[in-house]
Amino acid sequence: MARRKLVYEGKAKTLYEGPEPGTLVQYFKDDATAGNGEKRDVIDGKGVLNNRLSEFFMKGLGNIGVPTHFIKRLNMREQLIRAVEIIPLEVVVRNTAAGSICSRLGIEEGTPMPRPIVEFYFKNDDLNDPIVSEEHIIAFGWAAQQDLDDMVSLALRVNDFLSGLMLGVGIKLVDFKIEIGRIWDGDFMRLIVADEISPDSCRLWDIETGRKLDKDVFRRDLGDLADAYTEVAKRLGIMPQGPVGAIKPTLIN
Amino acid sequence: MARRKLVYEGKAKTLYEGPEPGTLVQYFKDDATAGNGEKRDVIDGKGVLNNRLSEFFMKGLGNIGVPTHFIKRLNMREQLIRAVEIIPLEVVVRNTAAGSICSRLGIEEGTPMPRPIVEFYFKNDDLNDPIVSEEHIIAFGWAAQQDLDDMVSLALRVNDFLSGLMLGVGIKLVDFKIEIGRIWDGDFMRLIVADEISPDSCRLWDIETGRKLDKDVFRRDLGDLADAYTEVAKRLGIMPQGPVGAIKPTLIN
Repeated sequence: MARRKLVYEGKAKTLYEGPEPGTLVQYFKDDATAGNGEKRDVIDGKGVLNNRLSEFFMKGLGNIGVPTHFIKRLNMREQLIRAVEIIPLEVVVRNTAAGSICSRLGIEEGTPMPRPIVEFYFKNDDLNDPIVSEEHIIAFGWAAQQDLDDMVSLALRVNDFLSGLMLGVGIKLVDFKIEIGRIWDGDFMRLIVADEISPDSCRLWDIETGRKLDKDVFRRDLGDLADAYTEVAKRLGIMPQGPVGAIKPTLIN
Repeated sequence: MARRKLVYEGKAKTLYEGPEPGTLVQYFKDDATAGNGEKRDVIDGKGVLNNRLSEFFMKGLGNIGVPTHFIKRLNMREQLIRAVEIIPLEVVVRNTAAGSICSRLGIEEGTPMPRPIVEFYFKNDDLNDPIVSEEHIIAFGWAAQQDLDDMVSLALRVNDFLSGLMLGVGIKLVDFKIEIGRIWDGDFMRLIVADEISPDSCRLWDIETGRKLDKDVFRRDLGDLADAYTEVAKRLGIMPQGPVGAIKPTLIN
């Protein structure tokens, strides 16, 4: 049995060829990076937690009819996903000001947005993922107008669902980032939620205390990142089973 | 006769109360600034040239039915304009890549845009006029959706007109910035082109030689700015009469 083929090595995840055409295996690493890779560390168990959390969120979205790439979890660090053509945009929804919008627009962290704001960032590490508007996206052909409308709708549905889910466990969904991909069912193209949804890609604040339960703990050195993610998993009733730690990618082909 | 009242002192222009309610006197200074005021100089005659050029462009737009703030020129450095409520956005139309879009999106200067791209920047010197999308504009109430649609239409009409005008005199309109203001005719609100249109707010390249005929000459130390602006005025057949030089604002009240 040959070692399976690497398809893409990202900062926090690795993609391998899947067992069937049109599938991939997504492996969650323990690597944490911030500032476009300027700050790096290995957080023992982060990959295990994010694999479980992303599964939980994607399944929940699937149950309310929001299509995602998730097929099934394979083991502690891996999940089987649909291969998609990723649209090269990070889609961000903000409910409360935090992160880059604060310095960019001079808004104090914690200020509620007048309504959820959908932002697009061009995925390009060399350019530090610059913010772009619909004009750029359409003019440069990264997505069509209809795609954009569908992306905004998807992003807002994810926001509605995650906001409710988090509120139920005493957490404020401040903002999150998703990536969206195209799949083809025959000639019919659909957009689905891809990549991951996890505390790496959301800002989550405890409603009572304001404690940050997301990657800002790492970005700003606010404590133990795995503790924060474990708290989110605990509240959602989805603690991973078994020891949380580095395991080798399993051979599934 | 009292000195007239100062309404607004900008980097390149000063606004005074006009002779009638709803009017202002716009005085064009010789001051040139770039990099949000980091680079400064006084360019003898620039204000005279821009007063004439902005008059020429605004009148031309008025003649094709694009409403502007321009009423009439008063003297070499001053024009009478309609007072507007300025929308706090710079509206930029790009036909060819130059300036900030090159570094932001990794596009080589001179690359033609696939189509004219309309961008919005939030007018705020403290924040360095950050680029914003329609989402921010609407969420923060800087303009309504209908205003935005009207602003895009106005900007594209200005682009069509100016592109043609410049092409006629051997100049490529690379990009330009306008500001747009609200006026009320009774209860009826309209958007009109305000501020100025001049080589301070456009990028203009000679089609044959690529010579820059706009404020980039100052930004990048490429030669004499007044020479470049004079070249534009000459080609358009609108050289200012009389000596080009600093004159005091006249008293008109």
